[in-house]
Amino acid sequence: MSDTPLFEKITIIGMGLIGSSIARAARKGNLAGKIIAADIDADVCSRVKKLGIADAVMSDIKQSVAGSDLVVLCVPVGAFAEIGEEIGPALKSGAVVTDVGSVKKSIVEAFLPWVPDSCHFVPGHPIAGTEHSGPEAGFAELFEGRWCILTPGADTDIKAVEKVTKLWEGCGSLIEIMDPEHHDLVLAITSHLPHLIAYTIVGTADELGDDIKSEVIKFSASGFRDFTRIAASNPVMWRDVFLNNKDAVLEILQRFSEDLTALQKSIRRGDGKYLFDTFTRTRAIRREVIEQGQADYRAPGGVVQAGTPPVSQD
Amino acid sequence: MSDTPLFEKITIIGMGLIGSSIARAARKGNLAGKIIAADIDADVCSRVKKLGIADAVMSDIKQSVAGSDLVVLCVPVGAFAEIGEEIGPALKSGAVVTDVGSVKKSIVEAFLPWVPDSCHFVPGHPIAGTEHSGPEAGFAELFEGRWCILTPGADTDIKAVEKVTKLWEGCGSLIEIMDPEHHDLVLAITSHLPHLIAYTIVGTADELGDDIKSEVIKFSASGFRDFTRIAASNPVMWRDVFLNNKDAVLEILQRFSEDLTALQKSIRRGDGKYLFDTFTRTRAIRREVIEQGQADYRAPGGVVQAGTPPVSQD
Repeated sequence: MSDTPLFEKITIIGMGLIGSSIARAARKGNLAGKIIAADIDADVCSRVKKLGIADAVMSDIKQSVAGSDLVVLCVPVGAFAEIGEEIGPALKSGAVVTDVGSVKKSIVEAFLPWVPDSCHFVPGHPIAGTEHSGPEAGFAELFEGRWCILTPGADTDIKAVEKVTKLWEGCGSLIEIMDPEHHDLVLAITSHLPHLIAYTIVGTADELGDDIKSEVIKFSASGFRDFTRIAASNPVMWRDVFLNNKDAVLEILQRFSEDLTALQKSIRRGDGKYLFDTFTRTRAIRREVIEQGQADYRAPGGVVQAGTPPVSQD
Repeated sequence: MSDTPLFEKITIIGMGLIGSSIARAARKGNLAGKIIAADIDADVCSRVKKLGIADAVMSDIKQSVAGSDLVVLCVPVGAFAEIGEEIGPALKSGAVVTDVGSVKKSIVEAFLPWVPDSCHFVPGHPIAGTEHSGPEAGFAELFEGRWCILTPGADTDIKAVEKVTKLWEGCGSLIEIMDPEHHDLVLAITSHLPHLIAYTIVGTADELGDDIKSEVIKFSASGFRDFTRIAASNPVMWRDVFLNNKDAVLEILQRFSEDLTALQKSIRRGDGKYLFDTFTRTRAIRREVIEQGQADYRAPGGVVQAGTPPVSQD
């Protein structure tokens, strides 16, 4: 933590879980001289004011970016064209804009046309979150030991990339640079498909009769509850993710469906060997996830321990 | 905790996660005068000896039940006919046998024919576990605040049911009585389908090229890691579950597939309203799971808190 903040003035647009966590982390890490929080929702603005996590809070998005060195967009993926049109002309010359969207290719397409030549856009995606939404759900440590993927274009100003890198390192994150299309494919597997599956299975249970539904909830500790956690995530955010990463999601969903059909067939035929082999293979991946420090796990003694951060970034 | 143990001598057959946790809980709660641990695997027996969680450890299953008031079967679902044939003739007159299998109807069919008239079988299923296997993975608190479902037959001796109820209450569990077929349907939804889905998605990732697979592991915190935890569960146990609860699993899998196809179609067509409505509906179930105390959740401050146990059992 240095005495001079990384940025004189930063604006965070969209004060939900992620936006409010960045505000808290920026204050904790002395990353910004001044933090401006903006949200189109007046109710959210008044809640952020009460939390006292920003120097100024406003619902006028255009006004909020005036004079800022760094603008961080924490809004749903579907809102970028509109936001770009609004803030593009108001950005300070030399300003760096970044975002936290879960999809990168469609955001670049929607937002980049609105960025003036004198400014820089460095798309980003912190791989961190909880199932809770809203400004109260945020906390300064959300990004600690977690990856943040940046997807700058080939011609993006290197100094702008460095600035955004320092922002995330200041929040405790590890940085990975990736191509937007590649990001969208990796995340389709690690994040978008798991969420779609979780939403589906919880939805399936929701359509059961009331009697059996109450039992499903009562005995949810047997596996189902892990899915309910994921399926409690922000519906607007996830609607936009699926609408904006359609091709990659449908491609990986197709593979998943084929594999599920194969397991279904093996159950119908009573093919124990196929089941055993599949269930054995999947154990190895869990071990790797734990070794890479990306899992919280319940130790044999029953104590929840946070995964240790990876020792290197490669 | 009373001075006189609930049982003079209990035998636990199968010393994995569940069996070894029962041994620990029985000792902690002074539930048994003597605890006999049995496992057909000599290596498991020597590990259990080292752990010092039983008064005697043996690999001879038949010998292990001699003189025991209570026998707890903690073996894979597929092993019950064989175990029944072996221990049936060796059971002490008046002995109570219970089990912890995840499927109930097929266990009753396989095991009950071997139970002598002078003995009693009270099938059970504690809704508790972790993704870890083996005797070292067990801990005495595993069942605290969790449900245990018992599925006695209409003509089962009521005193035997009471004894098994007291065993589980002594382990800290809440008791629910259910019909075996109904148990198998409820668990197909809450447990068997979630495990099948998790195994599938992790298997799908495993078949990707090595480059992308390593990235999937690296960025697993975005949803995938929750599935890897479930998909790390004991392969033998889960093979037997699917082979022995075929009808209920295939029935619920069919509904799931229909719902997934509907979501897939809405993504392809760009139907944001359908996605939003589905994702909103599923949030309500999560709230109920939390209210019923069956979820561990990450509080806004980032601290993991155990769900509080339900205040009543109805």
